[in-house]
Amino acid sequence: MAAHATVDTSSRLQALRKLMATPEINVQAFVVPTEDQHFSEYIAQCDERRAFISGFNGSAGTAVVTEQEAFLFTDGRYFLQASKQLDKNWTLMKQGLPDVPSWQEFLSKNLGKNTRIGVDPTLISASDADTITKALEPKQSELVSLPKNLVDLVWGSAHPPRPANKVFPLDVKYSGETHIEKLKRVREEIKKKEAKSMVVNVLDEIAWLYNLRGADIDYNPVFFAYSLIDADKALLFVNESQVDHAVLQHLGSEVVIHPYDTFFSYLTHLGSELNAHTDSKVLVSDKASLAVAQAIGKDNIIVARSPVTDLKAIKNTAEIAGFRASHVRDGAALVRYFAWLEEQLGAGREMRESEVADQLEKYRAEGEHFKGLSFPTISATGPNGAIIHYEPVRGSDDIVKKDQIYLCDSGAQYLDGTTDVTRTYHFGTPTAEQKRAFTRVLQGHIAIDTAIFPNGTTGYLLDPFARRPLWEDGLDYRHGTGHGVGHFLNVHEGPHGIGVRIAYNSTPLKPGMTVSNEPGYYKDGSYGIRIENVVIVRGAQTPNNFGDKGFLCFEHVTLCPMGKNLIDASLLSLKEKEWLNAYHAEILEKVSPLVQRDERALKWLQRECSPL
Amino acid sequence: MAAHATVDTSSRLQALRKLMATPEINVQAFVVPTEDQHFSEYIAQCDERRAFISGFNGSAGTAVVTEQEAFLFTDGRYFLQASKQLDKNWTLMKQGLPDVPSWQEFLSKNLGKNTRIGVDPTLISASDADTITKALEPKQSELVSLPKNLVDLVWGSAHPPRPANKVFPLDVKYSGETHIEKLKRVREEIKKKEAKSMVVNVLDEIAWLYNLRGADIDYNPVFFAYSLIDADKALLFVNESQVDHAVLQHLGSEVVIHPYDTFFSYLTHLGSELNAHTDSKVLVSDKASLAVAQAIGKDNIIVARSPVTDLKAIKNTAEIAGFRASHVRDGAALVRYFAWLEEQLGAGREMRESEVADQLEKYRAEGEHFKGLSFPTISATGPNGAIIHYEPVRGSDDIVKKDQIYLCDSGAQYLDGTTDVTRTYHFGTPTAEQKRAFTRVLQGHIAIDTAIFPNGTTGYLLDPFARRPLWEDGLDYRHGTGHGVGHFLNVHEGPHGIGVRIAYNSTPLKPGMTVSNEPGYYKDGSYGIRIENVVIVRGAQTPNNFGDKGFLCFEHVTLCPMGKNLIDASLLSLKEKEWLNAYHAEILEKVSPLVQRDERALKWLQRECSPL
Repeated sequence: MAAHATVDTSSRLQALRKLMATPEINVQAFVVPTEDQHFSEYIAQCDERRAFISGFNGSAGTAVVTEQEAFLFTDGRYFLQASKQLDKNWTLMKQGLPDVPSWQEFLSKNLGKNTRIGVDPTLISASDADTITKALEPKQSELVSLPKNLVDLVWGSAHPPRPANKVFPLDVKYSGETHIEKLKRVREEIKKKEAKSMVVNVLDEIAWLYNLRGADIDYNPVFFAYSLIDADKALLFVNESQVDHAVLQHLGSEVVIHPYDTFFSYLTHLGSELNAHTDSKVLVSDKASLAVAQAIGKDNIIVARSPVTDLKAIKNTAEIAGFRASHVRDGAALVRYFAWLEEQLGAGREMRESEVADQLEKYRAEGEHFKGLSFPTISATGPNGAIIHYEPVRGSDDIVKKDQIYLCDSGAQYLDGTTDVTRTYHFGTPTAEQKRAFTRVLQGHIAIDTAIFPNGTTGYLLDPFARRPLWEDGLDYRHGTGHGVGHFLNVHEGPHGIGVRIAYNSTPLKPGMTVSNEPGYYKDGSYGIRIENVVIVRGAQTPNNFGDKGFLCFEHVTLCPMGKNLIDASLLSLKEKEWLNAYHAEILEKVSPLVQRDERALKWLQRECSPL
Repeated sequence: MAAHATVDTSSRLQALRKLMATPEINVQAFVVPTEDQHFSEYIAQCDERRAFISGFNGSAGTAVVTEQEAFLFTDGRYFLQASKQLDKNWTLMKQGLPDVPSWQEFLSKNLGKNTRIGVDPTLISASDADTITKALEPKQSELVSLPKNLVDLVWGSAHPPRPANKVFPLDVKYSGETHIEKLKRVREEIKKKEAKSMVVNVLDEIAWLYNLRGADIDYNPVFFAYSLIDADKALLFVNESQVDHAVLQHLGSEVVIHPYDTFFSYLTHLGSELNAHTDSKVLVSDKASLAVAQAIGKDNIIVARSPVTDLKAIKNTAEIAGFRASHVRDGAALVRYFAWLEEQLGAGREMRESEVADQLEKYRAEGEHFKGLSFPTISATGPNGAIIHYEPVRGSDDIVKKDQIYLCDSGAQYLDGTTDVTRTYHFGTPTAEQKRAFTRVLQGHIAIDTAIFPNGTTGYLLDPFARRPLWEDGLDYRHGTGHGVGHFLNVHEGPHGIGVRIAYNSTPLKPGMTVSNEPGYYKDGSYGIRIENVVIVRGAQTPNNFGDKGFLCFEHVTLCPMGKNLIDASLLSLKEKEWLNAYHAEILEKVSPLVQRDERALKWLQRECSPL
């Protein structure tokens, strides 16, 4: 299994420990988190330090290397993969199991007294560092901020360079609001928080704010940058090689470009100036690093959720129009793909999961404004569909089987929107059990799609609507029901969502927010079912308006049939049947014009969209 | 309006201020909360100190009297009533409005520096006192625990004596578990919390624990008592005059009776003994007073939610059987009442809201094991039904009108259970709008009744099920959906509930818990709708058991028809219609044997329970 190959980390660890022991460094432990400097969900190869030092390349985990031992902390999703990938040098710490400490607890509970623990302060949040430092006090241990990342030094010349791909402006016809207007709104928020300026360190926030896009991280159209906004100007720290004349012209005179790697020295300078002015605080996101806090000075900052996150979450009219339009094109690609796949399987062709996914990408790429996928396609046959974060690995993936449930979770980036859609089909004859489970998931999906709720309601409180039909059969699923979706940006964005995470109870859903609706059911070793549309929150028309609070509803933008042969119609209510038929009629109307030249797709679409 | 008469408080306030100024007391402010020493929801007349001093007799509010002024703090439910009842000496503080401090905030924000603020430490919780004391520090003000309640001194000889009614044992055939067994389980919980003993100060906890009932507070079959439980024995502090030979025999040798008013001196003695033993902590409820904490000593206590609350909330087999049986009898009384009321109104008789409620009580009293009402009956015609906590006042109440919606929320205490039921009828011809609203409430009620959910789910997360059908029409209601119900005990009990209070998200629903299911809708000035049954949480039979967590459902025990002429059947799904017909068939089967001798009731029942 190429994906889960073990790396011999002996020489890497030896080199790291040698550095740790040098007198000018002198740390007895070194922490290697997953995060990059911008706390990105997906990271560039140059930032895959934890994977380099440990050999484990899952998306979540932290390595702690001591003088004699090495520990890898990860959660239940990755126990199997980590145990396969880690070599004999490593001890796997299964977080979430009873009596297994988190890596933060481990530092204070399991390491000896007077331990100096090295960290790269750009990769740990200021609040995490605070908590750990307090916990270390009784042991007289301390966190030591190192000026250079020791793993980078070990990596040496083999360390991939930081990507520096071209940045390009996103036309205001897609973004709907100039960056000058956005900066104005951000400044109002800075004022409300009683600060004078603000650091923006999260990449999709910077891309949104300046109406710029890049290609530095796979699937995420962002670029490496920091920004500092004050009352008069906005500083953008980005590699000059990435920025051409068109970008400069787009940005205008209000935005001043500085080199990416001068950001921290600039902050330090700013901090020393601020020390004289107690009333000039800098607003810093709760997702900013210890290095940011240290450079400005802890007394000069106000830490809060970034107002840019909240502004970005609410899509304007142009963005919403783009979401609708891009989803029609995406729907056409999906329809062409599934019609093609059905034919291939019907003809007995043997094709692997990644191979068929290529065909889907090909159809998407033929659509207007296509800019790449929004995440690696989950193309999963039978039991693989039950692995929630399954990603087929070319060569070691399975043949798609006609007599198994096929789950496909995929999405694309378009200039005018981002898509994320899951469909579950059976191209042969599903069992009664499979149909019942699928129908329960569909009912949950419909329950979210049709919900009407008062302003102020959170996705935490809507989540049970999606699960209720499954609960009725003693079924459930171990993931959230929905995440925010960026506009030609990251496919996952906050701060809102629909799900059991209590954090979702802090952010009411608001008109203009985009969110996925994706209940599922997974039978380990057998099959996975998930039905996912992207929906937009908008005002609802109700006969009354109790308490004058206003009521909201969802508008689905994803357009792809549900797979009628998996539906047990006897479970559906009259309203659910009407919903399904109306949705299919809508798909047929909107998507068929785009598949006129693909007769196979058109026929498939007409068949799948015929009334139940 | 007799209920809202103004009392002249001038002489009372003058006397209070004179006491405040005496050198041995010397306080510049005195706080008079609503609470009694046991933090009861309903209180005895002798504990109505805030009503005595202020003239305002609503169920919630706190008075703060300073040398020159007097402030009454209450919430939105009581703004109108308080403004009518308070005389010129008082300033009404409308809590919840912007810029209006809570009474706790007021003490630190609005009173001057160096203020000594008197409190009766038996009437304020230790945690509340802690928070206030910290907030007062910057002003060098302090809370002063006074040995005697100043309002009681002002009240003087007119102060009603503390009730001391007979206590009686509840047979184990009703309680299902002896107090010896309960004490054993409580001791296990004390051990788990690493304490050696425990103070029980809440009256329904004491009544439950010792299988004793009393009649010291209207509608609540409790008696004034404290208890202290250690490894070997259990001390019950209760007036000896309330306890006869039968009670002593019931309690046995393990329980030692002490006079009620020796409780605090006993605690002080215990505290001084404990000071020598650092490993002998006393578990104290978070609902215990500052006086309890002070008597034992803050270093000698562990404060936590009382384990008795949690044990009491889960009803055993005998208690559940009692709930079922008592609700059949209660249903018969309701059916007889509504049949009678319909006939009275049909015959054009003019009767007041309180008058007709008397007839309901009469029918209930004819049932076996009846011990009184569980709360004052809400008998409300038309617009009065929109006042959520309406209570008709004899003489100033309204005539029940045939052409108005009639809302009746009532309940009774039986030896084998407590009931709480709301029905909303129209004995004439309802409007289409009324029918639609009623049907939405009914759909919310059915949605809770039929919910199936995994173990671990809280009532906070189920609450949206009840509101969803109302939300669809832009309707909602400003109260919770359900509260715990005691077993021949308080009609409201914690710690669980179904509703928007975030506290309900801390207590998962568990098999054996009882809870009300009472969505509603209120159109101010026009009518109120509420449909309330008591339901029991129990294990559900599901075809699957995802994650082996087990699934739960509700069993309704309330048996009274829903009022078919208010139902707009076109809004109901097939399943909802089936539910209604099945529920009505169940009522007919269970209740008709008890109304055989009341032909009017039997006919009414048969008509109301015929299929939709």
